Amino acid sequence: MWEVLADRGFGGLTLRAVATSMGVSTGMLMHYFPTKRALVAHALHLLETRTAQRPRRERPTEGIAALRAMLLDILPLTPGDTARNRIWVSSWDLALADDGLGAEQADRYTRLRASISPHLEAARAAGELPESADPEQLAATAVAFTHGLVVQALFDPARFTEAVQIAMLDDFLASISDRSGQGR
Amino acid sequence: MWEVLADRGFGGLTLRAVATSMGVSTGMLMHYFPTKRALVAHALHLLETRTAQRPRRERPTEGIAALRAMLLDILPLTPGDTARNRIWVSSWDLALADDGLGAEQADRYTRLRASISPHLEAARAAGELPESADPEQLAATAVAFTHGLVVQALFDPARFTEAVQIAMLDDFLASISDRSGQGR
Repeated sequence: MWEVLADRGFGGLTLRAVATSMGVSTGMLMHYFPTKRALVAHALHLLETRTAQRPRRERPTEGIAALRAMLLDILPLTPGDTARNRIWVSSWDLALADDGLGAEQADRYTRLRASISPHLEAARAAGELPESADPEQLAATAVAFTHGLVVQALFDPARFTEAVQIAMLDDFLASISDRSGQGR
Repeated sequence: MWEVLADRGFGGLTLRAVATSMGVSTGMLMHYFPTKRALVAHALHLLETRTAQRPRRERPTEGIAALRAMLLDILPLTPGDTARNRIWVSSWDLALADDGLGAEQADRYTRLRASISPHLEAARAAGELPESADPEQLAATAVAFTHGLVVQALFDPARFTEAVQIAMLDDFLASISDRSGQGR
């Protein structure tokens, strides 16, 4: 199922495609997934689980450095990260067309921003951000930058190498940080 | 077709759905679109055309102010802008699963970045950006921020009101601008 999703997205997720990929009959697969809806529900569950259980960087630090590690864990820097992101981006079409799935995705975004805000609050307290910085708004901006980079990188991996993505992230983080008085 | 796309995305684009929405028979519609593929091709053409022909803000200025007008024209600030963005985001699933459509989307991103870079070059020349700024990389960052905000706003329009989106854009543009020596 993961291979089918990584290759064809949710738009190409069918019982027949999964059965073919597994080398079993569609009838065999229908024993487990009687409907397309059951297949999609399992695919979304698999995506959530794999995302939650993916290996992550150590996060020994607070503030901007911790945020950097979090965002690096989201970007498509390895083939596995790329497949996961590709499936997430694919799921947005599904989620935008279904009120229930859309609300789940909105909640997911709210949780992601809420997991980022404390690092930005700590960064502000440590003088890494201007005092006027709004951690909640900046969390939404950091998520926006990261997911927008994900999409561009998925379509153009040759242009958005690992080095380019990391340089863009570091420059983005430098730009939101407080450089006043430090010159450039 | 536009209504079906705005409501259900490409995942829900079927001859039957469009025929029902138009109040005609599926057979009648198949006279014009004999296959699902023909329907999708027309939908993508419609999306391109509507995007190219949408009304845009005046852009009397150069540099950061011109970039601001361009990015405001992308964000989902009106119902029409929201529908258009929703259909674009939906199209990514299709494009990621099809080499030809994927290459077209990569080219589209290249053109979008190329239309932004000159404004950033002008901004740097006018002292609005640090001398060390890389206009090409910053163009990719601006597109990333904007499209990542589009996705969050589509899923949570109540949270990302017009005022919130504009405030985020203005703070983002301020953060990439050269504030050294200006204090905050």
